[in-house]
Amino acid sequence: MKKEINYKSHCIKLLENRGCRIDDITDIVFDLQKKYIATLTRDVCEDAIDRVLDKREVQYAILTGIELDIQAENGKLSEPLQSLVAEDNPLFGIDEILVLSICNVYGTIGLTNFGYLDKVKPGIIGKLDKEGKDTHRCHTFLDDIIGAIAAAAASSVAHNSAL
Amino acid sequence: MKKEINYKSHCIKLLENRGCRIDDITDIVFDLQKKYIATLTRDVCEDAIDRVLDKREVQYAILTGIELDIQAENGKLSEPLQSLVAEDNPLFGIDEILVLSICNVYGTIGLTNFGYLDKVKPGIIGKLDKEGKDTHRCHTFLDDIIGAIAAAAASSVAHNSAL
Amino acid sequence: MKKEINYKSHCIKLLENRGCRIDDITDIVFDLQKKYIATLTRDVCEDAIDRVLDKREVQYAILTGIELDIQAENGKLSEPLQSLVAEDNPLFGIDEILVLSICNVYGTIGLTNFGYLDKVKPGIIGKLDKEGKDTHRCHTFLDDIIGAIAAAAASSVAHNSAL
Amino acid sequence: MKKEINYKSHCIKLLENRGCRIDDITDIVFDLQKKYIATLTRDVCEDAIDRVLDKREVQYAILTGIELDIQAENGKLSEPLQSLVAEDNPLFGIDEILVLSICNVYGTIGLTNFGYLDKVKPGIIGKLDKEGKDTHRCHTFLDDIIGAIAAAAASSVAHNSAL
Repeated sequence: MKKEINYKSHCIKLLENRGCRIDDITDIVFDLQKKYIATLTRDVCEDAIDRVLDKREVQYAILTGIELDIQAENGKLSEPLQSLVAEDNPLFGIDEILVLSICNVYGTIGLTNFGYLDKVKPGIIGKLDKEGKDTHRCHTFLDDIIGAIAAAAASSVAHNSAL
Repeated sequence: MKKEINYKSHCIKLLENRGCRIDDITDIVFDLQKKYIATLTRDVCEDAIDRVLDKREVQYAILTGIELDIQAENGKLSEPLQSLVAEDNPLFGIDEILVLSICNVYGTIGLTNFGYLDKVKPGIIGKLDKEGKDTHRCHTFLDDIIGAIAAAAASSVAHNSAL
Repeated sequence: MKKEINYKSHCIKLLENRGCRIDDITDIVFDLQKKYIATLTRDVCEDAIDRVLDKREVQYAILTGIELDIQAENGKLSEPLQSLVAEDNPLFGIDEILVLSICNVYGTIGLTNFGYLDKVKPGIIGKLDKEGKDTHRCHTFLDDIIGAIAAAAASSVAHNSAL
Repeated sequence: MKKEINYKSHCIKLLENRGCRIDDITDIVFDLQKKYIATLTRDVCEDAIDRVLDKREVQYAILTGIELDIQAENGKLSEPLQSLVAEDNPLFGIDEILVLSICNVYGTIGLTNFGYLDKVKPGIIGKLDKEGKDTHRCHTFLDDIIGAIAAAAASSVAHNSAL
């Protein structure tokens, strides 16, 4: 069990190093669900994010996606993959495939939330997407990872409030 | 081959009988993609929808989903399924699962588009969703089917314009 | 919470009425995992199945799939869906789509196990598949439902033994 | 269009460099489908593989997966990802997620075929899996990529023979 706890804190640190605090994800989950649940608090959202980050599959997807972003940022991938990731080609699609495992941890409504966030790009998602496009930073996988964590957490909140 | 052609026209007729013309779907695809493709025409969108409806898996999902809607409308399903479908319970999720096969026919970006449409419910999707909630009509599966056809067609348009 | 518990026992009763006891599913899970875990017991497998059946998405998929089987058996579906389901057409695919939500409850390895069971059809899966093909009974969805429950339970067993 | 053709031949060369010829994949597809189609020829299988490799999403998954294998083989990934990929941890799951986009190009039956191949590991899949486990070579993603290409090609063969 110890190993997993380390993975989780390692993932949270990785997200922070790449520019995303848990608080930024809480903002998105809260905004997404407050229209459905009048009594929703940020604590409930943060707790849901915490449980999403407990899942092994989520941790693996974070580790893999951020690694590819960092390697592309440093020009370390082989061509043509280097250009595809560095340019965040909208038809690349591997970023979205990778995070399906995150979206799905609390069932299919995670997919719907993810699709919405991926199109609308609220808060930190839009900020990182823009930074990835305007600077040398590469956030091709990161914005999808954040969207998927938020989507899964929102699904968890929705499921729990329905009990 | 003949059989399939019949399935396709049968599906188009089913959609019409339930309140959705191909033209209504074209509206959604055009609105979704015109911001990305300045030269987009409605003909291109209609053509993409036509190709989506050619696919066997799409036809099967349409046949199954609309059957469940009609049976629920007529009170012919067993409980508790009857209530779950008739009330369009947002956590039911089988409607979204069923149409994954439609979304995916042109790759993962179909999923993202579907998630967006499912949340925003533009045009005919919102109209049917409302009718399903306010009247005796049941459109639990239909609105997802339409969203998925539009999402897949939009993906096809995006792929082709990128060539 | 009460409602869910009822759904679960209702699903178990439905499975039994259609010819599948939990014990039959335990056989499959045990056979699938005993080669990987020397100390595996049937109790561990049964417990994993029990937790799979606790999940709302699993219950919904069971309710929907078995309803379609029963209606097809009684000739109550509209054509051409009636023939597609009654004949268990191998390209129909909606049965496999429907149970994806079951396979995925414990992550992607559920998918792999499901694919294997769907091809090899061990124990009760093969028995019901044959009954569906040779008699008036229709088990088009049931065999996939059982395979998916077994696959998800096997994934849960694998994950737990790895901790 | 030119770019895509280059991607395809680049992918075929990558597969060969890692130890898998198209002919090895043809063996698997032929073995998988010959029991269902008495008149099946290797040419039909090869043609189906060729069409799978035409798909952009397939090419992207091949590029990404093989890159991760090569980087792990050279010890170039960050920990803990380096160990997870190099050791081919059976619960890692990202290899299976990545190739879902390949499996799905011809519909859901691709998933079933993939699950079967991933368990049984016939021909080149088993050979590479063993090589990855016994030597310094890393084929964590490659064996899933090959299984997914074979599974998608087998689905295409099945669909076409049913017309």
